[in-house]
Amino acid sequence: MTTSPVGATAHPTRTPDAHGSPDPTATPLGFGVGARVTAAVMTDDYARVLVGILSRLDETGLVRETGDVSTYLGGHEAHLQRYLVDLAESLARTEHHASLTVVLSRGCPGEVVCELPDGAGPRGTEVPAPRRTGRYASAEWALYPLADQVTAEGTAPDHMRDIYAAIDHARELGTFRDSAHFVTRLEGDVGEVIASAVAGWLLVGRSVQHVTSHLTLSLNSPSHEARELEEEAR
Amino acid sequence: MTTSPVGATAHPTRTPDAHGSPDPTATPLGFGVGARVTAAVMTDDYARVLVGILSRLDETGLVRETGDVSTYLGGHEAHLQRYLVDLAESLARTEHHASLTVVLSRGCPGEVVCELPDGAGPRGTEVPAPRRTGRYASAEWALYPLADQVTAEGTAPDHMRDIYAAIDHARELGTFRDSAHFVTRLEGDVGEVIASAVAGWLLVGRSVQHVTSHLTLSLNSPSHEARELEEEAR
Repeated sequence: MTTSPVGATAHPTRTPDAHGSPDPTATPLGFGVGARVTAAVMTDDYARVLVGILSRLDETGLVRETGDVSTYLGGHEAHLQRYLVDLAESLARTEHHASLTVVLSRGCPGEVVCELPDGAGPRGTEVPAPRRTGRYASAEWALYPLADQVTAEGTAPDHMRDIYAAIDHARELGTFRDSAHFVTRLEGDVGEVIASAVAGWLLVGRSVQHVTSHLTLSLNSPSHEARELEEEAR
Repeated sequence: MTTSPVGATAHPTRTPDAHGSPDPTATPLGFGVGARVTAAVMTDDYARVLVGILSRLDETGLVRETGDVSTYLGGHEAHLQRYLVDLAESLARTEHHASLTVVLSRGCPGEVVCELPDGAGPRGTEVPAPRRTGRYASAEWALYPLADQVTAEGTAPDHMRDIYAAIDHARELGTFRDSAHFVTRLEGDVGEVIASAVAGWLLVGRSVQHVTSHLTLSLNSPSHEARELEEEAR
């Protein structure tokens, strides 16, 4: 559970660097940049398949903690995107139907309560370039600007500008399909679908300290075969 | 993607009932109360297993739209909890390893942009009683108070009170285990784990219009067998 948006709301007068700590945006781990990933492969052989895939992934630049519900990954956004795309592509290449649930978070290191004061950030980061995989995915995406940060001038940043920039970015990548209850639907090359979610997370992060995003991907769904062929024919 | 927290931030002076609409809290669907659910069963026979389970679930009081990434369910929180617990128990009774990803949302009907103005709510709802199933689950839970609602007196509601009430409620149910990066870990009877997440969502919803919650459950994980026996022995 994250209480950061609540804390940020409950203590609007709390000042940045109240703890006199060094620049919390200097390092990804210091700023709480990370992901949690749950992969489900619809086969009796799921354990062997997953262990084989995970043993071959490049973890450069990332810390990893494996759990029974999800695996935590911490590190720079570009490393996280590379790992997530490699994982999704590997899952897709098994040809098994699989689902991948991803949580992205930045700006709130710590657990029940953020270890950073409000106003520690935002942290600007370049949007990593997408990598096409030739594999199709459909996905549902939610993007949450949480810490409602007020600038030194006492005015809220222009979140809408960044949210629309995130949507426009997905349209440019060709992954934006439509909106449904509670989520935005993304479709296309799984590398570009994941890149769209990471980009949206970072674009909103230019004005908001604490931003989380939840992405659920469906790979090798029987209903996708026609679309998959269409994607690969491009 | 939800833009509600952003919209709520960008238009703090927008007044309730600006559209002169009837009380938006009067009905669950009018208030956008619903869930999206993704079930993954780790067996080659996943399609038959899922279709069989879904065909037997009680959908009383709910609207359902099935998608290839998730299934949308809309209706009263008590009906949603009943359906989610029935689904999770049915998945667990297959003895297959399965994961269940759940998104809960209330206070923001509509899609890219909420159809309700800020201040439409909050909507108070009784916390549904949990139903024990005898089946164990471990889960990771995130709870997001999104619409940063300001009262008529111009003061923010006491979100922390409700967040701590949500945590205390999970402790009382015995499902709270600890916190990890970005999530709270819940363990125990799957009926009580789901009830804990629904209760937290509703407790925060007493002071916040737009509240979402994301819950990822792991069922029949090999590593759970010892704990499962322990649970059933109680």
